[in-house]
Amino acid sequence: MSVRVLIDEARARANIKRMADKARAADVRLRPHVKTHQSVTIAGWLRDEGVDGITVSNIGMAEAFAADGWRDITLAVPMNPNELPRCRELAENGVTLGLLADHPETAAAIAAAGAFDLWLKIDVGYGRAGVRWDDAPRLEALAQAAAALPADRTFGILTHAGHSYAASGPDAVLRIHRESLERMALAREAVQATTGRAPRVSVGDTPTCSLADTFPGADEIRPGNFVLYDLMQKRIGACRVEDIALHVEAPVVGLRPDTHRLVLHCGAVHLSKDMVRDAVGETVYAVAVRDDGALDGSRRLVHLSQEHGLLTADPDTLEHVRPGDTVRLAPVHACLVCDLNRDLTFV
Amino acid sequence: MSVRVLIDEARARANIKRMADKARAADVRLRPHVKTHQSVTIAGWLRDEGVDGITVSNIGMAEAFAADGWRDITLAVPMNPNELPRCRELAENGVTLGLLADHPETAAAIAAAGAFDLWLKIDVGYGRAGVRWDDAPRLEALAQAAAALPADRTFGILTHAGHSYAASGPDAVLRIHRESLERMALAREAVQATTGRAPRVSVGDTPTCSLADTFPGADEIRPGNFVLYDLMQKRIGACRVEDIALHVEAPVVGLRPDTHRLVLHCGAVHLSKDMVRDAVGETVYAVAVRDDGALDGSRRLVHLSQEHGLLTADPDTLEHVRPGDTVRLAPVHACLVCDLNRDLTFV
Repeated sequence: MSVRVLIDEARARANIKRMADKARAADVRLRPHVKTHQSVTIAGWLRDEGVDGITVSNIGMAEAFAADGWRDITLAVPMNPNELPRCRELAENGVTLGLLADHPETAAAIAAAGAFDLWLKIDVGYGRAGVRWDDAPRLEALAQAAAALPADRTFGILTHAGHSYAASGPDAVLRIHRESLERMALAREAVQATTGRAPRVSVGDTPTCSLADTFPGADEIRPGNFVLYDLMQKRIGACRVEDIALHVEAPVVGLRPDTHRLVLHCGAVHLSKDMVRDAVGETVYAVAVRDDGALDGSRRLVHLSQEHGLLTADPDTLEHVRPGDTVRLAPVHACLVCDLNRDLTFV
Repeated sequence: MSVRVLIDEARARANIKRMADKARAADVRLRPHVKTHQSVTIAGWLRDEGVDGITVSNIGMAEAFAADGWRDITLAVPMNPNELPRCRELAENGVTLGLLADHPETAAAIAAAGAFDLWLKIDVGYGRAGVRWDDAPRLEALAQAAAALPADRTFGILTHAGHSYAASGPDAVLRIHRESLERMALAREAVQATTGRAPRVSVGDTPTCSLADTFPGADEIRPGNFVLYDLMQKRIGACRVEDIALHVEAPVVGLRPDTHRLVLHCGAVHLSKDMVRDAVGETVYAVAVRDDGALDGSRRLVHLSQEHGLLTADPDTLEHVRPGDTVRLAPVHACLVCDLNRDLTFV
């Protein structure tokens, strides 16, 4: 057996139901990000919980999910003007397509096309894409550029508080959550003052959406990773070990009793190189899962090259493992694992 | 335009010719690792320089290149016993398939099959897979397990001195090169003493093969990255900027004059997260290439998430760039870029 990505359907469905229930109770729309799994099968589980709109991160993904029947899609990366023709084709085929802009030229092009919903990208502190909530001149210029948007198109402001991934513990995540919503409220006022139109408010990242119960001022949330979770979310405090719905099964191909390692045929082409650091600062790419479902901290994936991985192992493990045995791993970042392994095994 | 991976054919062919000439002069066989590009087109350029055997890193890659007519293939990861049936099928279809073992059970299974060449994996200091050259008991046990290998099958020892990637500068790389060959000579003696059979010796990694001119005691070399090179090889001193034959072209989708960044639609799904650190310890995933081909140290890709990248930019750049413009990047690790972007653009 080569590397397999195992998706625990019961866990994933429970994760989805929990988030859908929370969104209903908080009176916000759930528009999950499907870049996490890129799977129409898993998107079907979202549909089963009443989800009818999704978020994607590239135009190819939008096309793939449109082909599966999704009719309300937000492309949550600032629109690449060169891809306007492909966007237009989706709209002509009946897809309500939301596009992002953090530059006035892009906003003007989307608005003028008349065929798309328009979301102005706001940076509430992450520092990646967007205009800062408190950068009044740039925010005003961006909002003005949206003037041509037809009245029947959704107009909104959107943020991703990705700095929640660097937060340690629920309190720190919830502080970012409250602060993000306050900053979005300020941005909303500024945009409304410029345009005379009240923008909808879209927020969402898995740490804050998992740990918060209410989303004051927001109209929709867009978490993605919550369907599967992973070691990074566990470390942040956004999930429990028993919520992690994606494991990687990897074959043992060598034993290193001299260095206390197992050699796995499982590398950066299977897991990516996203990592966390353990208590002593050592790089960890994945942790082994025991038969009872608990994480086995003694077996940590500490080295990754293109196709090899090295797993720490105690003498007892080294004595009993043989080449061809498999190890079950909880990886650091589920989204990149799914991007690298498009053939998922549902269990 | 979305992300495109540009392969400079003239540079790649020059890189190939240089290595092929060197191998001929040094009287070693060149068996390049095609995991770098996974491209039958580029493998054709190798064939044009007289290469008739290749190295791969998984069975699927072996099957793909066999389908393209390659008839002498080494699978350079310790064999996964579960994949023996697929290996056998390749052999039955006329492929001379070399398999690796660093465990006696694996070696015995390969030898007993009678259908494969067998390479014992030696660790000369990298610490990844293999049996250490100086671990006499384990090396003897491994060699003994090869006893059933038919006399007409190639029997060898093989190493990858991957620790050369951590070396800084040609002198350090060449020290590892000499040390590796000395250690392989010792391993060769030990294996011959156990088996009564002189094993062939296979070595190879791009840093040592690029910087060394001779390979005393080796029968073949297996570099892979040398065809394309990248920032990591440049940093090691294994290539010049003008040898780098792979660039990534990425679209600008946002501008951050406030933080002096360009937002690119180019993330971990395009580049992987392999990185180097610059002089002040900052993470760098890629460096922009100027129109004249030089690296532009002022434009460094310093943040990568799934589909976003942040490129440092000076005020002049920020004033002139517009969404939809493209930036040409030299990435840190060409092999992972090719794994993630299988659709190469030849220029």
